[in-house]
Amino acid sequence: MDFTELAKKVINMQSFSKFMGIEVISAGVGFVEFSLPVTENFLQHHGFVHGGVISFMLDNALTYAGGSVLGENVLTLEFKVNFIRPAKGTRLVSKGRVIDRTKRFAIVKGEVFSEENGEIKLIAVAQGTITAIGS
Amino acid sequence: MDFTELAKKVINMQSFSKFMGIEVISAGVGFVEFSLPVTENFLQHHGFVHGGVISFMLDNALTYAGGSVLGENVLTLEFKVNFIRPAKGTRLVSKGRVIDRTKRFAIVKGEVFSEENGEIKLIAVAQGTITAIGS
Amino acid sequence: MDFTELAKKVINMQSFSKFMGIEVISAGVGFVEFSLPVTENFLQHHGFVHGGVISFMLDNALTYAGGSVLGENVLTLEFKVNFIRPAKGTRLVSKGRVIDRTKRFAIVKGEVFSEENGEIKLIAVAQGTITAIGS
Amino acid sequence: MDFTELAKKVINMQSFSKFMGIEVISAGVGFVEFSLPVTENFLQHHGFVHGGVISFMLDNALTYAGGSVLGENVLTLEFKVNFIRPAKGTRLVSKGRVIDRTKRFAIVKGEVFSEENGEIKLIAVAQGTITAIGS
Repeated sequence: MDFTELAKKVINMQSFSKFMGIEVISAGVGFVEFSLPVTENFLQHHGFVHGGVISFMLDNALTYAGGSVLGENVLTLEFKVNFIRPAKGTRLVSKGRVIDRTKRFAIVKGEVFSEENGEIKLIAVAQGTITAIGS
Repeated sequence: MDFTELAKKVINMQSFSKFMGIEVISAGVGFVEFSLPVTENFLQHHGFVHGGVISFMLDNALTYAGGSVLGENVLTLEFKVNFIRPAKGTRLVSKGRVIDRTKRFAIVKGEVFSEENGEIKLIAVAQGTITAIGS
Repeated sequence: MDFTELAKKVINMQSFSKFMGIEVISAGVGFVEFSLPVTENFLQHHGFVHGGVISFMLDNALTYAGGSVLGENVLTLEFKVNFIRPAKGTRLVSKGRVIDRTKRFAIVKGEVFSEENGEIKLIAVAQGTITAIGS
Repeated sequence: MDFTELAKKVINMQSFSKFMGIEVISAGVGFVEFSLPVTENFLQHHGFVHGGVISFMLDNALTYAGGSVLGENVLTLEFKVNFIRPAKGTRLVSKGRVIDRTKRFAIVKGEVFSEENGEIKLIAVAQGTITAIGS
């Protein structure tokens, strides 16, 4: 099974990911890319995408990227997110990348982009730590 | 209008907060407390609450705590979360507190607790920055 | 040997800590407190204490607090610092505390205070992860 | 005055940067690169470079990168650092880059490398927020 198929399989086992409607675009060793159609349900009171939705996109991106090098049994220890600008538009894309790894840890970064009227905007960036369970 | 009523009013204007079912327990100058009934929809593939749900709880806690001292028009610039242990159980509680503030910024912290069989467990802690829009 | 003596002993083995002149005030299970006399050498070009000095104070505070519950062989995996206001004055104090711990990790927080004309000001706060080596 | 000269001038006005012996390699719009000869003074008790030294390298890298797009009067609001592996060797290099900027803020990243026996190793990565004073 290739990494994209594996990521799709795991996503399909996550109630919350299905509840949100996130989709795997592609995955490989050290990277993953997700897509999320933005619905009315995901907005806050100014009409922008809620920070919790963006954090969810990043959490998945970081964890899957880390898992692609550490194995399936991983935990997200921590991450840090900077929200750069408000997200409008119809679709969010998140990308996860492994910056480096050691025996027990993967240091990962994530980005969230928003598609607005054909324009792609960088919405948020994250950096975090994934660890292998039992390592 | 007191702060608890104000927080409830704002939550009620946020599609995503209503979609998730988060409730205001209490709010005041410099603090806020939220509750979220955990449903099947919020789990990941090991049966624990998805990190995105916990991040959502923290995002709200930090932003509302910051808004209670900076005014209603605030942005969450950034936050950092440490996931301490997996969350099971039927209810999450998040608490936001203002650590300190300056003219333009509130430095805030957040905690997420899980109720499992009558026991309360600390699940995650966060630290972040809220800024007043146009300040 | 009590924790304060142990912390003093370790500090005395760290060239950089001696180079900076940091002193242990007190230490115990889950906490530590350091003091640093501020000299001209520690300033940046606006006359405030350089952020690198404050980060050093926090790094020590977080690592020692974590080590007090995980054992002497620990690594600081990561931390996040918020600088709240510029530091002037003659002395910095940093405090490290363990928020919670699991088998392999301690989640810690740190604070830096500045003494200015008899007034104590909160300068920076941090949150981080310490891990036991070989755990 | 070009950016490299400007960065050298500012560094020369910072007591702590001179005390540490950091040098500007190059600078431009949105990036900066520093070098630090590692001396005995910078080590901790296992013979590795102290985390406070690495944090100092990052603090400078992030702040200068941010200042190169926001102007000279900037504050480092916050940053987050992941320590990837211990640093040995004779020289540290830190690089700061602007990821993105808005009117008031620059979102920046930093890296620290160690030169050990001719080999270059990634030691730490950081992400942070710089703001223009009075903006």
